[in-house]
Amino acid sequence: MEISLNVKGMTCGHCKSSVEGALRELDGVTSVEVDLSSGKVNVTYDQAKTSTDDMRQAVEDQGYDVVA
Amino acid sequence: MEISLNVKGMTCGHCKSSVEGALRELDGVTSVEVDLSSGKVNVTYDQAKTSTDDMRQAVEDQGYDVVA
Repeated sequence: MEISLNVKGMTCGHCKSSVEGALRELDGVTSVEVDLSSGKVNVTYDQAKTSTDDMRQAVEDQGYDVVA
Repeated sequence: MEISLNVKGMTCGHCKSSVEGALRELDGVTSVEVDLSSGKVNVTYDQAKTSTDDMRQAVEDQGYDVVA
């Protein structure tokens, strides 16, 4: 399963690393790709183990917003 | 002794922390204040122990430029 999240507020490589790291830590997430300029974050995951709500929470915990 | 460096490229709190941390690690630096919006970094230091060249190097090692 793959999803594309729109994340707001990432400005630099550190931000990118924070978001990537937080998502990769979720059980069931197998790959994360962040495009800094667009704010697009592609996540490959196992639906049985994690949810988009978990992802949103993980991103928000790092101080960024997930927009619709 | 106090100096104000103009640092280019800091975009977020992580950048601020990187620059602050690198400067604070220098022997002789007693205080560092970063203003993110202006890029101004005020450093209080002991001239006998460190130099502006050391500071410039420390900031550049973190991936930011010190401008005149």
